This record gives sequence, structure tokens and C-alpha cells, in this order.
Amino acid sequence: MSELPGLFAPERVAVVGATERDGSVGRAVTANLLEFDGDVVPVNPGTETVFDRACYPDLGSVPDPVDLAVVVVPADIAVDVVHDAGEAGIENVVVLTAGFGETGSKGATRERDLQETASEYGLNLVGPNSVGVMSTAVNMNATFGPEAAQDGSISFMSQSGAFITAVLDWANDRDIGFRDVVSLGNKAVLDERDFVAAWGESDDTSAVIGYLEDIADGSGFIETARAVTQETPIVVVKSGRTEAGAQAASSHTGAIAGSERAYEAGLEQAGVIRAETVEELFDAATMLDGQPLPESDGVAVITNAGGPGVLATDAIGDSQLELASFTDDTLDSFAGSLPDEANIYNPVDVIGDAAAERFSDALDVALADPNVGAALVLACPTAVLSFEALAEITTATQAEHGLPVAACLMGGESTADAQSVLDDAGIPTYFDPARAVTGLDSLARYREISTREYEAPTTFDVDETAAREIIERAAERPSNALGIEAMELLDAYGIPTPEGTVVDTPSDAERRAAEIDGDVVMKVASPDIQHKSDIGGVRVGVPDDAVADTYEDLVARAKNYQPNATVLGVQLQEQIDLDAGTETIVGVNRDPQFGPLLLFGLGGIFVETLEDIAVRVAPVSEPMAAAMIDEIDAAPLLRGARGRDPVDEAALVETIQRISQLVTDFPSLLELDINPLVATPDGVVAVDLAATIDPEELDR
Amino acid sequence: MSELPGLFAPERVAVVGATERDGSVGRAVTANLLEFDGDVVPVNPGTETVFDRACYPDLGSVPDPVDLAVVVVPADIAVDVVHDAGEAGIENVVVLTAGFGETGSKGATRERDLQETASEYGLNLVGPNSVGVMSTAVNMNATFGPEAAQDGSISFMSQSGAFITAVLDWANDRDIGFRDVVSLGNKAVLDERDFVAAWGESDDTSAVIGYLEDIADGSGFIETARAVTQETPIVVVKSGRTEAGAQAASSHTGAIAGSERAYEAGLEQAGVIRAETVEELFDAATMLDGQPLPESDGVAVITNAGGPGVLATDAIGDSQLELASFTDDTLDSFAGSLPDEANIYNPVDVIGDAAAERFSDALDVALADPNVGAALVLACPTAVLSFEALAEITTATQAEHGLPVAACLMGGESTADAQSVLDDAGIPTYFDPARAVTGLDSLARYREISTREYEAPTTFDVDETAAREIIERAAERPSNALGIEAMELLDAYGIPTPEGTVVDTPSDAERRAAEIDGDVVMKVASPDIQHKSDIGGVRVGVPDDAVADTYEDLVARAKNYQPNATVLGVQLQEQIDLDAGTETIVGVNRDPQFGPLLLFGLGGIFVETLEDIAVRVAPVSEPMAAAMIDEIDAAPLLRGARGRDPVDEAALVETIQRISQLVTDFPSLLELDINPLVATPDGVVAVDLAATIDPEELDR
Repeated sequence: MSELPGLFAPERVAVVGATERDGSVGRAVTANLLEFDGDVVPVNPGTETVFDRACYPDLGSVPDPVDLAVVVVPADIAVDVVHDAGEAGIENVVVLTAGFGETGSKGATRERDLQETASEYGLNLVGPNSVGVMSTAVNMNATFGPEAAQDGSISFMSQSGAFITAVLDWANDRDIGFRDVVSLGNKAVLDERDFVAAWGESDDTSAVIGYLEDIADGSGFIETARAVTQETPIVVVKSGRTEAGAQAASSHTGAIAGSERAYEAGLEQAGVIRAETVEELFDAATMLDGQPLPESDGVAVITNAGGPGVLATDAIGDSQLELASFTDDTLDSFAGSLPDEANIYNPVDVIGDAAAERFSDALDVALADPNVGAALVLACPTAVLSFEALAEITTATQAEHGLPVAACLMGGESTADAQSVLDDAGIPTYFDPARAVTGLDSLARYREISTREYEAPTTFDVDETAAREIIERAAERPSNALGIEAMELLDAYGIPTPEGTVVDTPSDAERRAAEIDGDVVMKVASPDIQHKSDIGGVRVGVPDDAVADTYEDLVARAKNYQPNATVLGVQLQEQIDLDAGTETIVGVNRDPQFGPLLLFGLGGIFVETLEDIAVRVAPVSEPMAAAMIDEIDAAPLLRGARGRDPVDEAALVETIQRISQLVTDFPSLLELDINPLVATPDGVVAVDLAATIDPEELDR
Repeated sequence: MSELPGLFAPERVAVVGATERDGSVGRAVTANLLEFDGDVVPVNPGTETVFDRACYPDLGSVPDPVDLAVVVVPADIAVDVVHDAGEAGIENVVVLTAGFGETGSKGATRERDLQETASEYGLNLVGPNSVGVMSTAVNMNATFGPEAAQDGSISFMSQSGAFITAVLDWANDRDIGFRDVVSLGNKAVLDERDFVAAWGESDDTSAVIGYLEDIADGSGFIETARAVTQETPIVVVKSGRTEAGAQAASSHTGAIAGSERAYEAGLEQAGVIRAETVEELFDAATMLDGQPLPESDGVAVITNAGGPGVLATDAIGDSQLELASFTDDTLDSFAGSLPDEANIYNPVDVIGDAAAERFSDALDVALADPNVGAALVLACPTAVLSFEALAEITTATQAEHGLPVAACLMGGESTADAQSVLDDAGIPTYFDPARAVTGLDSLARYREISTREYEAPTTFDVDETAAREIIERAAERPSNALGIEAMELLDAYGIPTPEGTVVDTPSDAERRAAEIDGDVVMKVASPDIQHKSDIGGVRVGVPDDAVADTYEDLVARAKNYQPNATVLGVQLQEQIDLDAGTETIVGVNRDPQFGPLLLFGLGGIFVETLEDIAVRVAPVSEPMAAAMIDEIDAAPLLRGARGRDPVDEAALVETIQRISQLVTDFPSLLELDINPLVATPDGVVAVDLAATIDPEELDR
């Protein structure tokens, strides 16, 4: 992927549909572009000049090369204009025109035409139905919105145009600046993945933020974002989190969103920090933009008021951060310099009569402590404290130490000047101690992300050919479901199953049962009968001397239930003592955006009633599979809680990985459930497997 | 309790320690009082006048009656001054002086003297170590803080003085007004309970807010707040939520805080809305202050932008609220009046070209819908929308319908004028849709609280005399623990136990065992042996023919283990089949602030590993006990999940209530655990009980 220089740093921009007509979108975008550092070329067959610039009838007539065409023509000629752009050798196009996929079947057809045209010429196309793009580096505001972004280094993408307008109106008051801004529109060609990639390549973007209602290609996004987030933080509001929200999002953009579970897992695997609200988005972004990363999770709180210090401490307790434990040297230093009434332990209370110097002396000592990774300066108004002096001196102390600092100034207008001093130095300011801590927490979260080592998934030696045959055979059935061969599929991928076989005579059954230790489980083997239990087609705990009779009975039941059913015989299986182990479940679902979702949990009530599950987008590496087990609340049950012997966790981890490999190898495996996968101290055994196949995927 | 009129509406206020000395607290408070509607009387033996007012040497010399004395003298003479106040017949005293309980043992002694003096004269005493009190109704600012509160109807108490200063500085910029403000200080006499009671009595307080680090008398607070919150909402930040925060709070105020679980349960039982952050506190308070209560949880969202509408919908999904389903009439009306591109379903998107009138027409239609209890007006900046016109017209529409409305204006300075129009009408405004929804949610939460019907706890017919004898006997032991008589204690309170008895010969054991169905459990009966299992003193599943031998063996083990132990014989018990029921736990702990905390959960891993428990402060009514069962995640396991028969839930509810009655009757019962309480479809049976006694409580 490229940095998309023609889109964000063009030299010549053509506006197709440029006009001076009052109240028109064409006028708004052309007027906004008058500040642009490069050339603006109006294109409109109906006029000679627009804002005193020579106007051309069409893109083909423009004499010099154009880097970017902004399209604001009516929907019915928009595709033709994009075609013209391609013919004219223009590589970048932003389509502001609405009336495409968001408006019904005619619009959808138009959007497909647009995609084909873009594909034909290899265009970088933004939109349609976009508010436009901005780049403060070249003073380009190619949008029809009322506000231009201020200069900065946060790059911003949004699937809602109004969200951009609203945020810029608000951010400009707070002196929050941006580098590039893009309104994604319908994402017919370029989408979030492309912009994340482009900004990841660019040295001028310090942080990427986004408002997204869906992610078009979940697994592709994970791949790209995972690489980018090793260098550049990405913070995203993904709306439609709740069921009601997802419905509202789909009626808004027409996008079919995947499940919330998939987004939660996918964004986490991509290293994307997820914000739930607009304020959280900017609290995180301004901190990531302005402050260095901490080296540890320990925070020092320096305050002139005990109560707010307690509130900050509570917020730290809720976060990934921890209240730093000071070294003896630090404590000695505080004891020597602070008044007797001060609290020298964290949160440090420099007490109400502190002027700015006492704050910054304490900050200086705290930031020198090896246990301190970041600091929070938390000040309430007093007669002796000048907020501005505090701001100046905090800025200097922060710069000296190079560690992140947040400032919580608990006041109103009296803090305004101090705020702008701190803002200019990149130190975010807050009123509420809890939000200041959330800001610092985003640094700690990003530190974890940027230092992640993504391990490749293990490739196990498996019998893919055997698996393919089993799946293809199952796909031929009307049910598309795996039957007695389910266990063979697991065998092919090296997942332990109970000893067993299919027998087709009572005597054979008797002979084979004798080879199996203990009682056996017997199931009628018929590809035509789905719910074997319902017709009494399954027997457990069959002793060897009852095997022949049970065989006869099972087959008779099957024939009686469905006279024309093909009955292959009876499946004979070693009976696993469920009480000797812990029942777990490994499952797979397909998500429309993210593909195969792996699920792990404990059997019985844990998955069904308590919803205590861990989810990942496949494929997973070994550490990821291990983390799935860590994540469930009931994990202690696998690890020796209540006097049980710990189970063979490595075998569980390996099974999750082997299933991950299986569903990655076979996109046709639509759903799959090993339930139960019994875990014991000596290993695991998959007692039952249900799986369905999507024959269409098989043909691909 | 009274409205404390002498404190918040005095006619004459004396300031003991009044002075004009620069930088002194005495000057600050006297200067702040110059605006007071009533008379201010300086008291100071060292000067003739203060700010041109005649100054008296002591309180006894002031000729006219004084309603309130504000004390700003040095700590070593403060108690004498309070004594003078009592002698002079002054009923209300605010002690600003520090150097009491917060500073060590000398200060603690001084605080006890202060309490005794206050008690001697029946004083309403605020502090010591308080920033003071304010009442905007009489323009009284009897604090030494830099800012006075603006006029309003929210009353505000804080255990942190700096928190008051910070909040007023911030609130004054936002035109948030207050009625009474009190800095609680060390709460030597008056505490949160007194102010909640006083403001509950007053018609001029629309909402009570508080910052608290502890609650001195938990159960008393519940009793008072429960009554007040039926009429007046209370919103509180209780800091020290997290372990780190609780430590910070205790080092700040020296208060020993109870457990977070107790506060969570206690505040909920008191009908207090708990805010976690300062912003949440004010988002809730301004909404409760300014808007009527909704009649249902359905919210209509009217927006000019789809994306922010999705964010609001997500926040609604996270709250107690729901997105209202419009009636057909409403949908028809929208379809007839809104443009084709609009979304007429909730969230209603009036689209980007809407002026204020289209918003308010839609709001008018939505508020008339019987399914709508409240509305959110959510506007992004556009070329055609005037925020001020929107504010005016929204205010009028809200007033017409009398239903609560919140406004989310997603912009910066451009929304300022509109904000003040809405603020003046009591309609809170927000930038972030999620916070607007949180504001509306606090109305819904308070509606639930204000309509609660608190049922009295059931009093069961029990044998209190028998219980007392058992407890007194146990208290005489060094262990203070109940032994074999534990089951008798449950019997006395009507809680089913396994059939059983204590026998003192092998033959008696054999005879009695034969009367009990099935195998029996046998435990050595000795008050001197605590951990019977450890010495092999417990046998389960003993068949009748092994009872005599087991008797001999158990007694021999006991004698062998501890030759001088008193061995009463052997306890014989019906063996309960644990697999036939579901193991639950009913437990009790004592919290230093709230007293007896009842705990309910499922046995095994549910309480220990998953911490899936419900907690209430005893005593509990029947609906409260039933709610404890509802609250646990594993409740479906009691209700027929996974093919089990539902247990006798009424018997569980009754057992919780009976235990509640037991621990309320006997404050000496320090800890108690029925584990397991086996629940079956036919009832419950308490298989084991552990309990410890506090002999000191017994003497009281």
C-alpha cells in the first residue's frame, strides 16, 4: 500500500461541478479549496470562470496534469465523470455525489458501475457520498463542510460525514489539530484498511483515529492494522456495539455489520484501541499525539487536595495502570522537602498552601523514581496557587524527564490560560480526574500494543487430503452436515478422539467392542438420520455382552423410523468417563466481516448460561490460543481449583490451534463444535463433533 | 430531624476569629460573609472593628441572639469557644479550625472534647476541619473558599473541602446553581445523614449531591436516605471504590471505610444514585434538577445525522433506557411530514438539510407518542441549522409536553448561545451523545427509586430464647465458635437441617442410626477440637452395621489427638445426597459501617472462583431476598436450566429472610456461613453451619 500522496498532497486539484451558485455543494467545496497551497482547477461546461479561475468544460480539456479530481456532479453523470478522470490519467478521485448504494437498487447498480470504472483505471477513489478530504500539510480542504481542520498530526477517518463536521467544530475550539481527514462515504473503493495503511507509512501522522460503522474486510484489516499499530496508534469508535445500535447502523449506511463479538476480538487482535464514546476517542488521541510512552504502568499522582487524589486513585484502580510505589530515596526526598502535614505516599498531597513550585519540585522527584512511568498533576484552585505558573513549570519538568504527564485542573475559566500553555506543550488537560487517568491509560495500553510480538500460527502436520475427502462427501448430503465421519475429520487433523469404529454386523460389533476397554457407546450410523438421540438411536454404557443385542435394536429403530434410510451399521465408541475430566467446548462460527471465529469455554452451564467464553478470529498462534484459556472466568477450574488435578492445558492449547488450522484450510467449514472436549491431567479427547459445510465455498 | 434552619437560614452569624489580617482564614470568611442578607457579628478580643463592624471580645458579650457561630480560632482554644457558644445559647456552630481527628492522637482527644461539648449543649455542629457552609437563599457564604455558589436548587455536601472549591469554580462557568453547600469536615457531630434528612424536609432543594469518602453510620443512613429519596433524588460519588482508592481515602481522612460491597449494597438499598466520576455526578444532578421524570423508559432520538444517532442508540443499549417503538400514527405522521430520504424509525433522522422547525415538528410528534417517555435532540452543525433557533423551539416544545428532553449539540463555540437558552430552561446540554443518554438514564433510574415500595421485613415465629442460650454457651469457649449445637441454632430459627442427634455410646449410636433413613454422617462431638476433618474425626456414608465400630474409632482418634479434650460423644446425621440438589451458600459478615451483610450464591466454584454473589445489608424483606437470587448469574441453574427440575425457590427466599432475622436479633453473631444449603424441588436443607460469636457484643 502507498501513502496515497496524490490524495493528501496533490499539486493540482480539479473540482468537477465547480460553481459560484449560492447554497450549492459545488460552491462550498470550491470556496473551501481557495486556501489550497497548490492549483485549483474548476471544471464545469456551463461557465467560463469560477472565483476568477479559468474553468474547463471537462477533465479531458484541462491542459496540465491533475493529481486529484473532486466530483460534485449529479448522480446520473458521476460515473461518466469518473471515467473521464481515468481517461485523463488522473489517479485520485473523491466522489462527493450521493445517490449510490445508500439509496436502493438503482443506486446500488450505479455504485457497481463506479467500482468497475475505478477498477478499470486503477483509481484511488474516495466515496461516493463523501463529505470530502482534507490535508492541513498543504492547506487543502476538499470538503463541503463549514470548518477546516487546524494543523496537527492526528489523521482522522469517518464513516459519517456529520461526525467530521461536528468534531471539527468542537476540536477547533480546543486547539486539537489534524493532519489528514477523510470522509469515507460508501467505501466503494478505498476503505479504512487503505487509509490505515497509508497513514502507517507516513511519518507525519502521529496517531490515527476513526469513526466506523462497519469494517469491510475484517481479516484484511487485522493484517494491515497489526503492522501499522506497531509504530502508530489507532483509536476507533466502532458504533453499533449494542443490538439496538447495530440495527440503527445498518439502517443508516446499509452496511451489514458482523457480530459485536467479532469486532471486539478483531479490533483487539489488530492492536486497535477501541473507544466507546467521542470523548474517550479524543482523550486517548490527544494523549497519544502529545505525550511519550511510559516505560511502566506505575503512575505518580501529585495533588494539593486529598479528595480528588482519592478519585484519581479509584480511576487508576479501574485501569491497567497502578499507583506507583515510591522508592525509599523518593520518600526521603519528599519527607525532607514537603511540609509535615503533606502526604509523602502516593497520591502525594502537597497540601492546600502549595504554590506551583512545590508541585513541580514534587513532580521532579517523582519522575526520577524508577517505579514511576507517568505522572498526573492534579490541582484544585487555592488562594496561593497560580494555574499558569503551574502550567509553565509542569511543562518544563515534563520536557526534562521525557516521561508522560497529564494535567487535571479542577476549575473553570480560571484554568483557561494554563490549559493553553499545557496544550501547546502537548500535555492534555482535564477537569475530571477519572478522564485524566483514562488518557494516561491509553498510553499504557498502546505501550503494550506497540511492543507486541505477533507470532505466526503453528502449522501442524495434518492429513489435509483425508479431511478434504470427508468434507466433500458431507457436502453432497442434503443436510450439509458431518455424520459418523466427524471423528475421522478430527483424526485427520491430529485431535484425539475416543477409540472407535463403524461396524455392520452384530458379530463384528461384539468382536470390536471386546477390543475396547470398558463399556462402549453405540450410535446408529446413517447419513439420513440427523437427530439420532430423538429416535433412541444412541446408547451409552453398553457392556460387552449386550453389544450384539443393542446392535440389532438400534438398526431396527432406524429402519422403523425411516424405512428408506441408508443404514451403514452402528458406530462403536470407547465410553469416556466425563466425571474424570473437565468438559470444555471448542467451536467455530463464520462472521460476515471477519471470517472464522474461534470460541473456547467450559462445557455445561459455562458457555450457555454464564456466557463465559473467549473468542478470537482464526488463525491463532500458540500464545493467542493460550490467552483464550486465561481469559475465561472459569479458568481456575482447569488449573486445580477445589482440589482437582490441573488438566493438560498444553493439549487444550494445541487443540484450539489445530481447529484454527482446520477452519483456515477449509473455508467451506461453516460451523463446527467439539462439545465436549474432555480435558484431563493426561490430555484431551474430543467426544463429539458437529459440523456443517457450505457447498458453495467448497467450489471456490 | 429538622431542616437545620439556624444553619442554612440564620438571621445573625457570629465569626469567632474575625480579622482583617491579610492572607488569614478569618479575613477570608468574614469578607465572604459581607454579602450575607442577615447580620454578621465579628468576635475577636484583639480588635474593635472588623470591616467597619463592631467586634466583640467573645460570644458571651454579643448583645443580640446569634443563630450561627463560625469558629476560625486556633485549635487549642476552639473547644473553649464552642463551649462559649453553648453557654450563649447559640444552637449552630461551624468549626473551620483544623488540627483535630485528622492529625493524630492529640487531635483525636481534642475532637472527643469537641463532641462532648456539642453533646452537652445539643449543638448542631459542622466540622471541625470544614471549609464552611453556604446558603444562596440568604446570600450566605460562610466559607473561606474563593468562590460563592450561584443561586439554584441543588444542595451539595462534601467530605473534601477542595472538592467544593474546585466544583464551584467549574460550576459557576456553567451556570450550575446551588441551594445549600456544606463542607462536612471531620463529621464530629453532624454527618451526611443529618444533611440528607434536612434537605429532604426542605421544599427548596430539588436534588442532593455529595462527595463522600465514608458513611459514618451505614444502616442509619439507609433508613434516612430511603425515606428522603422517595421525594428528593440523591446522587453521590463515594470514593475509595477500588482497593487502592480505599487506602488513599483512609490515609486522607483517617476514616475507616467499610467494604466496597457494603457501600454498593447499602447505597442501592438507600435509593441513592451512585456516580463514579465528577462528570457523571453533574450530568445526573443537572438533569434531575431541571427535567421532569419520564413515565416510561422509551426514548425518542431526533437527529440530523445518522452516525451520531447510532452512537446515541449504543448508549441507550448500555443503559436502563430503551429506544422507543413508535406507534403507526407517529410513523404515518413522520412519513407525511419528513423528506423521503429521512429515516422515520427511531432514531429519527431528519437529515442534513433540516432547519430548526423540522427538528421541533418531529420532536412534537415524538413526544405525543404514548411509547415515548423522554427525548434526545441530537444536532450536528450544518449550513441551514441555527442552534439558537433549535434551542428556542426545543424549549417551547418541551414545556408544552412536560416530558423530559436532553439536548446534544455536537459542536464547539457555535453552540454556546443555544446552550445558555437551554440551560435557562433547565434542559441540560451535552457534546457527547453517550453523556446525554447517561443524563436521561439518571431520570429513569430515579423514577424507579421514587416509586419503590419498601416492604417491612417479615418477622417469623422463632425460638429466640433457645438461640440465645446456644450463642451464650458458644461465647464461653476460647474459640468463640459454634460447635455441634450449630444445627440447633438453625432449628431454633426454623431453618431445615438434616435429621440428627448426639449420641454417647456405641449402642445408642446404632439404635439411633437405624431410625435415620439411609447411611449416616458421623462426627466426633468435642467443644475442644476445631478441625475435626483434619484428625479423621468425620465419616460420611456410614452404613448402619458399621456405626458402632465407627463410634469407637472416632472417639479413640479424638482422645489420641488431644488426651485432655472433653469428648461428648458423636454427632449422628442423616446423609444428604448432594447430587440430588443444588448447593447454595447463605453467609453473613459484619461490616464496620453497615453492620450485617447477607450473602447468597451457589456453592462450589460459583462463590469462590467466579465471585457470583448477591449482597444486601440486613434486615431484608421478602422481595429483597428474592432479588438476591435473581441477581446472581447462575440463577438459571436453580430454575431448571439444563434439564434439572427447578428448586423450591420460596424455601431459599425464606431461609435468607430467617438468617436475616437471626443476625439482626443477635448482633453478637459475627460471621455465619451455611455451606452448603442444599436446594431441591422439595425444599432446602442446611447441611453445615459455621459461625463465630463476638462476646463483647453479647454483653451490650
